[in-house]
Amino acid sequence: MTRPTVADLAAARERIAAHIHRTPVLTCRTLDEATGARLFFKCENFQKAGAFKARGATNAVFSLSAEQAARGVATHSSGNHGQALARAAAARGIRATVVMPETAPKPKIDAVRGYGADVIFCEPTNAARQTALDAFVADTGAEFIAPYDDVRVIAGQASCAAELIEDVPDLDAVIAPVGGGGLISGTALTIAAHAPHIAVHGGEPAAADDAARSLESGQRCGNDAPDTIADGLKASLGEITWPIVREHVAAITRVDEDAIIHAMRLIWERMKIIVEPSCAVALAAVLAAPQHFENRRVGVILTGGNVDLDRLPW
Amino acid sequence: MTRPTVADLAAARERIAAHIHRTPVLTCRTLDEATGARLFFKCENFQKAGAFKARGATNAVFSLSAEQAARGVATHSSGNHGQALARAAAARGIRATVVMPETAPKPKIDAVRGYGADVIFCEPTNAARQTALDAFVADTGAEFIAPYDDVRVIAGQASCAAELIEDVPDLDAVIAPVGGGGLISGTALTIAAHAPHIAVHGGEPAAADDAARSLESGQRCGNDAPDTIADGLKASLGEITWPIVREHVAAITRVDEDAIIHAMRLIWERMKIIVEPSCAVALAAVLAAPQHFENRRVGVILTGGNVDLDRLPW
Repeated sequence: MTRPTVADLAAARERIAAHIHRTPVLTCRTLDEATGARLFFKCENFQKAGAFKARGATNAVFSLSAEQAARGVATHSSGNHGQALARAAAARGIRATVVMPETAPKPKIDAVRGYGADVIFCEPTNAARQTALDAFVADTGAEFIAPYDDVRVIAGQASCAAELIEDVPDLDAVIAPVGGGGLISGTALTIAAHAPHIAVHGGEPAAADDAARSLESGQRCGNDAPDTIADGLKASLGEITWPIVREHVAAITRVDEDAIIHAMRLIWERMKIIVEPSCAVALAAVLAAPQHFENRRVGVILTGGNVDLDRLPW
Repeated sequence: MTRPTVADLAAARERIAAHIHRTPVLTCRTLDEATGARLFFKCENFQKAGAFKARGATNAVFSLSAEQAARGVATHSSGNHGQALARAAAARGIRATVVMPETAPKPKIDAVRGYGADVIFCEPTNAARQTALDAFVADTGAEFIAPYDDVRVIAGQASCAAELIEDVPDLDAVIAPVGGGGLISGTALTIAAHAPHIAVHGGEPAAADDAARSLESGQRCGNDAPDTIADGLKASLGEITWPIVREHVAAITRVDEDAIIHAMRLIWERMKIIVEPSCAVALAAVLAAPQHFENRRVGVILTGGNVDLDRLPW
C-alpha cells in the first residue's frame, strides 16, 4: 500500500472525529491587505495537543488491532508528533513511548509526559534516534508510528483539508508548511479527491528546502543537518510522501529565517493567536510569492501553537 | 440621563453591527479542569482594534449628529479606548485626537496613529491628562468621548454580553474585569434586561480594588496611583458606572499580580491565544473564588489582546 485511498481518508475522518477538534477558520483583514489575497486560516494551533499532528496520530492509534494496541506504540519526535501520539495512546488507554532528542524544548517534553507517555532521550541526530527507537521496538514489540511517512498518519492529516474545504467551499489555493510532507500530502490527496481545481502549495524554510529541490530536480532530496527556527520542518520528504507531493503540489516557496519570524510576529500581533515558527512558514510563503496568491482565495493551514514562551525569537 | 435604557442597548447593537466583529466563543477543557467550572470565553481580544473598546467607541462616534461629527472627537486613554476611538472615527471619516501619557506602550501609540488619529502627550497623571484634554476640547469644540463613564460607551459595551448569551444561552454566571466599569456595567444592563437569572461577577487587581471596596462600603471609592500589570484596570468607577455596579454586580474578586500573570500565561499556553494582562484578571478571579464558579457554566469576557510582545511579564 503506497498511499491512502479515498476510502482510507473517509474512514480516518470518521475514526478520529470524536477525539479531535474541528478547528475554526479565522480571517484577518489586515493580513488580507498585507498579502493582496483573501486568506482563510485553518487554526490547527487550537487542535488537541496544539497541532494538526493529533489527527494522524489518532488515526494510527485507533487503527491498531487489539493485539497490536496491547503492545503499545512508539515513535521519535522533536515535539508535536510525540505529544500527539502520547495523547492518542492515552485516549485509547495504551502505552506510548517517545524517543526525543536531549535538545527538545522543555514544554514539549513536559507535555509528552503529561499525557502519561514514557520518554527516552537520545543525541540529536537521526542515527541516534533510530538506534534508540529500533532497540525499544525490538524489546517490546511496540508499534512504530512514524511522524509522517505512514499511510495511517497521512490519512489522518488529510482530514484537516476536508474540513477546510467544507467550511470555505470556494477556495482557489491551499498552502501548508512542508517538513516530512505528512500534512501536505494528506492535504493534496483530499484536494485531488474532492476539489481538484484548488492549487496545493507548500512553504519551506530556505534552510531546509529538500522538498523545493526535490520538485525542481524530479528526484527526492534530503536536508543535511538543517538549521532553522522552524524546528518542525527539518525533516525531509519520505518514500510515501514524496510521490504524492511530486504528483499534486503546484509549487513550494522558500522563505528565509527573517521572513519566518516576521510572519510569526504578524500573526501574533494582528490575529492575536499563538503560532509556532514552523506554522508561520505558510504565511511567509504567501507574502514571498504574490504571483501565486494575489487576488486569490487562499486556505492557509496554521499547523501548530506549541511555543516556549520563555524563548521567543524576537 | 443616568444610564442607558433597554432601547439604547438595542439601538447601539444595531448601530455598531456593521463596524465590529461578532467575536467567537471558545472553550478549553484544560481550563475547565483547572477551575472546576465550564468556561465559555468571549474573545474580544479578536475584536477590531484588539479589544471590546471598539464597541463603545463605535457606538459613541456613530451616535453623533453630523454637526458634532464635523468637529471631531477626543479622549484620553492609556491605550485601548484611544485605539478604538481612532478606528471608529476613521470609519466615519472624522477627526480623532487622543491624549496619551508619555509612558504609554509604543504599540498602542503606533496603533492610534495608524488609524490616522492625532496624539497629544501628557505627563502620566490624571490631572495632566484632564488639563490637556480640556484645553484641546475648548480650542476645537471636539466631542469628548469618555473611556467608560459615558452612556453611549456603556451601551456599546453592553453588546458583548448580548452576543454571548445568544451564543451560550444557558449560562449561570458571567465575569468581566473591572476598571472604570464600562464593560461590567454594560454587561450587567444586558443581563438584567434579558437573562436576570445570570449572576454578574467582576475581577479586579488587588492593587486597584476600588470597585471591591466600593461594593463593600456602599460608597464609591477611588484608586490612589495604583501599580498593577493590568494597566487597563487602573481607573476607578465613575458616576454613571458605579450605581449600575452597585445594583447589579454579585461580587468582585480581588487577584494579586502573580495570579494575573499566571492566568495570562495559562491562556496563552493552553488556549493558544494572546490576551493582555488586564484581560487575564477574569480567569484569575475564577481560579481565586471557586465558591462562585465551581460546577457552574460561566461566561468569561476576554477583553483584549494588545500586548507589547517585546515586554512580556515572565
